[in-house]
Amino acid sequence: MVDILHRVGIKAPLNEVYKALTTREGLAAWWTNDTQGESKVGGVLNFRFRAPDGSELGGFEMKVLELHPGERVLWQVVDGPAEWIGTKISWDLRQEDDYCLVHFKHLDWKEPVEFMHHCSTKWAIFLMSLKSLLETGKGSPSPNDVKIDSWN
Amino acid sequence: MVDILHRVGIKAPLNEVYKALTTREGLAAWWTNDTQGESKVGGVLNFRFRAPDGSELGGFEMKVLELHPGERVLWQVVDGPAEWIGTKISWDLRQEDDYCLVHFKHLDWKEPVEFMHHCSTKWAIFLMSLKSLLETGKGSPSPNDVKIDSWN
Repeated sequence: MVDILHRVGIKAPLNEVYKALTTREGLAAWWTNDTQGESKVGGVLNFRFRAPDGSELGGFEMKVLELHPGERVLWQVVDGPAEWIGTKISWDLRQEDDYCLVHFKHLDWKEPVEFMHHCSTKWAIFLMSLKSLLETGKGSPSPNDVKIDSWN
Repeated sequence: MVDILHRVGIKAPLNEVYKALTTREGLAAWWTNDTQGESKVGGVLNFRFRAPDGSELGGFEMKVLELHPGERVLWQVVDGPAEWIGTKISWDLRQEDDYCLVHFKHLDWKEPVEFMHHCSTKWAIFLMSLKSLLETGKGSPSPNDVKIDSWN
């Protein structure tokens, strides 16, 4: 099993960061405009992605496993690309000086496939979108996300 | 042992990307302005980093282990932060349609420490700097790199 790990520090109140990870409006403002479902334990969030020309690229369905306000969020992928199904995504937050530190983990990939390399870089880009949303009021969610390669 | 993995696609000739990874001028234009040493097998490259106020943050010394023109570069860290020493950094390039695909690996971290999470995100930022250098002529090397947290 292999993991994608990231860390960003966001100059914003911890509870605002938590809200951006646990409300449909928050998630839609930094990850993908097309976010459906409900962020409650046992609920399923549905994230769909489109190319700049409007064609659908696919998406992910995440079951919400844990919600600890201001501290931690844990999702499990229940639908999406084969490599993602069964993997878990955790968000751990803590305050340090002016920063809300976000520790991100996309856990339990079966193999370090090429697609995992892509997703690792892309997660960093979306974490910077989350940071920008909280610090400036404006994220870069799909379909207006920063493109990193031919896979978007 | 744990690894940082990334992938970016760069719309540029493969040999130009290879040059940006294997010349002092190229490396200085996307990673850190203060790059010394020689990119030859057995040689050592010295990368120093400064904060925006000019104070030195530290740096890395890399021994060049492999150079395969247009294909692959392999470094080993011989000096720098304790967690980096002994780790290896590989760059594998291949052409696919309009893109030079760059597969990046920072291999053999002993533990998935918090600093590794930071470095994973920061590598993605520098890979976007490399992409920008090749596609637009302008990278964002340190000290003008994008800051991601209180560790820079």
